[in-house]
Amino acid sequence: MILVAIPEPLRSRILPSSLVEQLRAIAPVAVAPTPDDLLASDTRALLAEAQVLVTGWGSDLVDPKVLAAAPTLRAVVHTAGSVRAVVTRDVYARGVVVSSQAWANALPVAEYTLAMILLAAKGVLQARDRYSAVRGGVDVHELLAGHGTYQAQVGIVGASAIGRRVIELLAPFDLTVAVYDPTLGSDEAAALGATLMSLDELMRTSRVVSLHAPWLPSTEGMIGVNELAAMPDGSTFINTARGALVDEPALVRELQTGRFDAVLDVTWPEPPAPDSPLWTLPNVTLTPHVAGSSGNELERMGASAVGEVGRAVRGEPLHHAVGADAYDRLA
Amino acid sequence: MILVAIPEPLRSRILPSSLVEQLRAIAPVAVAPTPDDLLASDTRALLAEAQVLVTGWGSDLVDPKVLAAAPTLRAVVHTAGSVRAVVTRDVYARGVVVSSQAWANALPVAEYTLAMILLAAKGVLQARDRYSAVRGGVDVHELLAGHGTYQAQVGIVGASAIGRRVIELLAPFDLTVAVYDPTLGSDEAAALGATLMSLDELMRTSRVVSLHAPWLPSTEGMIGVNELAAMPDGSTFINTARGALVDEPALVRELQTGRFDAVLDVTWPEPPAPDSPLWTLPNVTLTPHVAGSSGNELERMGASAVGEVGRAVRGEPLHHAVGADAYDRLA
Repeated sequence: MILVAIPEPLRSRILPSSLVEQLRAIAPVAVAPTPDDLLASDTRALLAEAQVLVTGWGSDLVDPKVLAAAPTLRAVVHTAGSVRAVVTRDVYARGVVVSSQAWANALPVAEYTLAMILLAAKGVLQARDRYSAVRGGVDVHELLAGHGTYQAQVGIVGASAIGRRVIELLAPFDLTVAVYDPTLGSDEAAALGATLMSLDELMRTSRVVSLHAPWLPSTEGMIGVNELAAMPDGSTFINTARGALVDEPALVRELQTGRFDAVLDVTWPEPPAPDSPLWTLPNVTLTPHVAGSSGNELERMGASAVGEVGRAVRGEPLHHAVGADAYDRLA
Repeated sequence: MILVAIPEPLRSRILPSSLVEQLRAIAPVAVAPTPDDLLASDTRALLAEAQVLVTGWGSDLVDPKVLAAAPTLRAVVHTAGSVRAVVTRDVYARGVVVSSQAWANALPVAEYTLAMILLAAKGVLQARDRYSAVRGGVDVHELLAGHGTYQAQVGIVGASAIGRRVIELLAPFDLTVAVYDPTLGSDEAAALGATLMSLDELMRTSRVVSLHAPWLPSTEGMIGVNELAAMPDGSTFINTARGALVDEPALVRELQTGRFDAVLDVTWPEPPAPDSPLWTLPNVTLTPHVAGSSGNELERMGASAVGEVGRAVRGEPLHHAVGADAYDRLA
């Protein structure tokens, strides 16, 4: 039996009726009445018979107690990216396989990033603000003299799934790509189509910097005073990863000088405090953590998860398994 | 002799010293003191000996009088796109070849368009506005329920150089592309990666519509009351072509209902009148005609023009020639 344990209203958006039909064609399907509490009695009764558990944002954590109540469980298929929120490391000792649809969630993040890189390199967001302030003719060539997407360098911090997809999407353009990732070799970077740089060199030489590092104890505040000070005047800093990766007070201080711009889909805290300058700084484009899957993009994650459920039930290898090693490494 | 007749400050941006050096390696180079008046005495003296004339935005028109003063002229190499502003049809009878760097100017327009298509399909611009209005938590999945870049249809109006490049750039995404162009067959559309549709069907079924038609007497006002009424609620209309292609009062009326959004890089008039609602409508992203080449993108046009000058001087076929037939057809 396939037990779907995703809180509404997300459940119906990730698994609309067409995808539920596909699940039913694989095995009987039950929907957990309390997806955020797998041990509440009604859900617990279903869990006792589940072979595959389908989770999503807001699902209860699968820990030793839940595992003990799920004797036939052989797979947890997570419809979103990060599996740390839905399973503890204990699943591996029990032989339960884990699947993440991080690849599907990486696509819209990379798309948002690509769009913002192109607009930032060209100076479009700045031009928009200037136009609406002037309400009349603007000398575009004067305004955008330092900008343009011809042979400008884009710096990608973190060769994560999202970082790699962004690099891939940048291929059709006359932009050069620098990458920083402490786990990456220069040959590997070159194979991706990027030049490996130290973080300092990348920050100093890029017109646009985009952050795609995982949120780990070792990465918190990795973009600090020195890294921000290195950014050239007129450049743009993009963060779609996590607010905690950045020393936000230092970022705000730099942005208040107007020296460079920022596109922030994530902040720390999130949303920013009501009196945060991030709400009103003219050189900040602030969006409410929308880069990941939303709207019909949720169905892409659902469709990917349905494929994984089928493979799990048939005993085939998963396409998007997260093994014990990856569990420790990933965000 | 190569005569460069482009008004400053654009001239040095299109042809920085490194590109002027490349020109000098081809043949002696002179700079017209009055690029906007080729028959003023100082410039006229240089014109009398010119083999190749290099023009740009704001250059004087090469008409029969100018041709009479340029007996050795064999090529006009325009560093920008539309050659109608710099040569009359008479050049062809004189055997003067004409080159346009429209291809190079198409690239940044297509990049701007791609970025706006991705953001519009995902609802990012709307989410940004909502976030800054609320200054607090936003239910992103509720707000963006009708959006997303997964299997959404993008409609491209006009299979121009820019329209084709946009279609090409859309290939890596899970978007379907519809195209309308009265000169295009359905096989040709399919080869581009798009489905040919009537304008009405395209407007009715696309989440995002982007306009890439030439400005001709026959295309003025082609996006009128009926076409705009056909657009679905929550969709986005993008115009990087010309304001005159759209019935702007009808567009403003639709936008005032808030039914759909617009991204306008061009308007009619341009800039909009000081009291135009386009300046303040929350569902309009207005930019000051920046999609074309600006900043370092001007050098791409310059570099392309230098290549053409070399071929013209050596008597080789031009790569970006505009023949008499194309002259009549192009914008």
